[in-house]
Amino acid sequence: MLQFIENGSISSVQGIKAAGINSGIKKQKKDLALIYSDVPCNAAGTFTLNKVVAAPLIISKEIINKKKKVKAILVNSGNANACTGETGLANAYKMQKYCAEKLGVNPGEVIISSTGVIGQQMPMQNLLSGIDTISSVVDYCQGNDAAEAIMTTDTKKKAYALKVKLLKGEIVIGGICKGSGMIMPNMATMLAFLATDASIEQDLLQELLSEAVNESFNKISVDGETSTNDMVVLIENGKSGIKINKEDKDYEIFKSALITVCQEMAKSIASDGEGATKLITVSINNAKTRKDADVIAKAISNSPLFKTAMHGNDANWGRILSAAGNSGANFSPEKVTIKFDDFLILKPNYTNGFNEEEAKKILAKDKVTVSLDLNEGEESSTWWTCDFSEEYIKINANYRT
Amino acid sequence: MLQFIENGSISSVQGIKAAGINSGIKKQKKDLALIYSDVPCNAAGTFTLNKVVAAPLIISKEIINKKKKVKAILVNSGNANACTGETGLANAYKMQKYCAEKLGVNPGEVIISSTGVIGQQMPMQNLLSGIDTISSVVDYCQGNDAAEAIMTTDTKKKAYALKVKLLKGEIVIGGICKGSGMIMPNMATMLAFLATDASIEQDLLQELLSEAVNESFNKISVDGETSTNDMVVLIENGKSGIKINKEDKDYEIFKSALITVCQEMAKSIASDGEGATKLITVSINNAKTRKDADVIAKAISNSPLFKTAMHGNDANWGRILSAAGNSGANFSPEKVTIKFDDFLILKPNYTNGFNEEEAKKILAKDKVTVSLDLNEGEESSTWWTCDFSEEYIKINANYRT
Repeated sequence: MLQFIENGSISSVQGIKAAGINSGIKKQKKDLALIYSDVPCNAAGTFTLNKVVAAPLIISKEIINKKKKVKAILVNSGNANACTGETGLANAYKMQKYCAEKLGVNPGEVIISSTGVIGQQMPMQNLLSGIDTISSVVDYCQGNDAAEAIMTTDTKKKAYALKVKLLKGEIVIGGICKGSGMIMPNMATMLAFLATDASIEQDLLQELLSEAVNESFNKISVDGETSTNDMVVLIENGKSGIKINKEDKDYEIFKSALITVCQEMAKSIASDGEGATKLITVSINNAKTRKDADVIAKAISNSPLFKTAMHGNDANWGRILSAAGNSGANFSPEKVTIKFDDFLILKPNYTNGFNEEEAKKILAKDKVTVSLDLNEGEESSTWWTCDFSEEYIKINANYRT
Repeated sequence: MLQFIENGSISSVQGIKAAGINSGIKKQKKDLALIYSDVPCNAAGTFTLNKVVAAPLIISKEIINKKKKVKAILVNSGNANACTGETGLANAYKMQKYCAEKLGVNPGEVIISSTGVIGQQMPMQNLLSGIDTISSVVDYCQGNDAAEAIMTTDTKKKAYALKVKLLKGEIVIGGICKGSGMIMPNMATMLAFLATDASIEQDLLQELLSEAVNESFNKISVDGETSTNDMVVLIENGKSGIKINKEDKDYEIFKSALITVCQEMAKSIASDGEGATKLITVSINNAKTRKDADVIAKAISNSPLFKTAMHGNDANWGRILSAAGNSGANFSPEKVTIKFDDFLILKPNYTNGFNEEEAKKILAKDKVTVSLDLNEGEESSTWWTCDFSEEYIKINANYRT
């Protein structure tokens, strides 16, 4: 029923064009992405909770809040246009307006987004001539270029497309995203742009996106930081002719498909965290409340001591329990069972006696699931994080965000 | 009025003996400390808020909560006796009882404390024979040995003694502490033991200690972690014959002296954080409320991106503002002024234009103050933290806490 499309991206969605080019903001790498729909789309979005909000977000949030139709998303990397004051805001409006002109649409139909260095004014000449170019080359299959153009310290481009068989027919959800540093929940802490050819009312689209973001991007952590520029946007163009209504069976199928794509994107961000060498799934089970499960999963995913131990392939269950104990959740440490994948590390009453070499082997893999059974109730929560390496420090001691 | 005693420590307080030896828990380094008063002392304490509480804390908390008199504090490093279940608790009681026997005091007069690896049973044979030795060698000038014996990954021993001239005469406050990793506020996140020869009722002693801890140990952060074993204990033996009452002028002098010692200890812990190369004072001024100032100071002190930038001597003010923006505090980013020591980095409306090389020089020092003027009100808060280096990762990827 759900099938990922090989090399799929946002332009795998019918009617959605995309492109990615170098505009000169960065020296050589691609730094400007455009996503374009020939018909107006309903759009939903979630935005950073950081009090310091970058200029493009001020503009894009208003479009979403006013439930306006959208025809394009323009994103640059290399400069965040954050902490740039009135000049920055004027530049963001200029970026939006110039792109709208070139595409022959209204400025209010263009969502804009930026990521990169904070506190420097946007090199407008590069940006505007880049818009000239990209608006003329945008086509139906360049979503992977767009994915490349929004990268900062990401080591891999992140693009996905999922074919979804609904009862009424087939639709596609496609998306691109970027992450790397400053990754920590509470919307959104990274950039992700998604599109679908299903037809969905704006209110329902927003509801679906908010729920999917909560189950995916809000459950990853690289370093506990939330950036000034983070946003997730989902647009729909209805090209499939299939309408999703809340009462339909297709609604549930679509929702689970959207969550699947968002989780895949979120995991790709966690596993490509700055300096990361592995993806760690933190799964908390049998908690008394959902919130208990969630804050424990979050506390472990954010713990530098846990993440450094994972980097050293050290089965240091004491740090896992200690992080859980710091979460504020209600649980009894002595009732906890801990597993790495299916390998038993700790039984209740702190009983352990596992083979350290076996545990090391499991942790040495590039994907590992750390699961805790709290033996308190029936609620659960899953987060995704990465290990914490010397490389993270090197990248961030010398990179000017 | 206040004067630090050169090479002073807890045994600089009259009537307080101390010792530090190797008992074999660690291979060669000192690992067992004893602090002893020949007269019963009132004792105050603050303890970890981690839900996972080590065995010795269960016992020591009860002594403080029941306001019992205390004659000794026994501390081992190398083994935390945390997550050790009923066997661990029985071992902690045995450690307390055996030490009491050797000193000829009641078990309830001995506070115990442990730090080191979590989840392993205490090597009791080493510990008990260590108690045999240490109870026979404890004397009036070995406080620095005791400071050494409570170290784990600390690179420097931490011992202080402050001579305080009160109106009624002279008293001394002395102390030892350890920190290094797992350092983050909310009581206490490290070990500190203090003594004074002033005479103070237990309730007032607890009030004074709680206030001093809030102004010192609860305002440092190395990695945002709170350990299972952290505690601060202050004992008084009244040997000076000088009584501190809440109505006296001496009360304020004593309080500010106690805060001074605790802040000095706290700063020594922050600057000796795992892998730290510098002490960073984070000073938030002219906030609307004290809480706003405090959460911003905390958010910056805990931010990996800020701390890695400091390591790279990178005047990355965007990360400072971004961390402040994540704190939840009420402030306007565009009104903020940022200084490194007296050097202006950012003026309101994101105005900057400082000399990067000058800024680098300031950050390259081993002590730097990062101050923010919020221009919102009159409240302020100061925290202490350290930079975040590759060394932190190396230490923690390979050290089994």
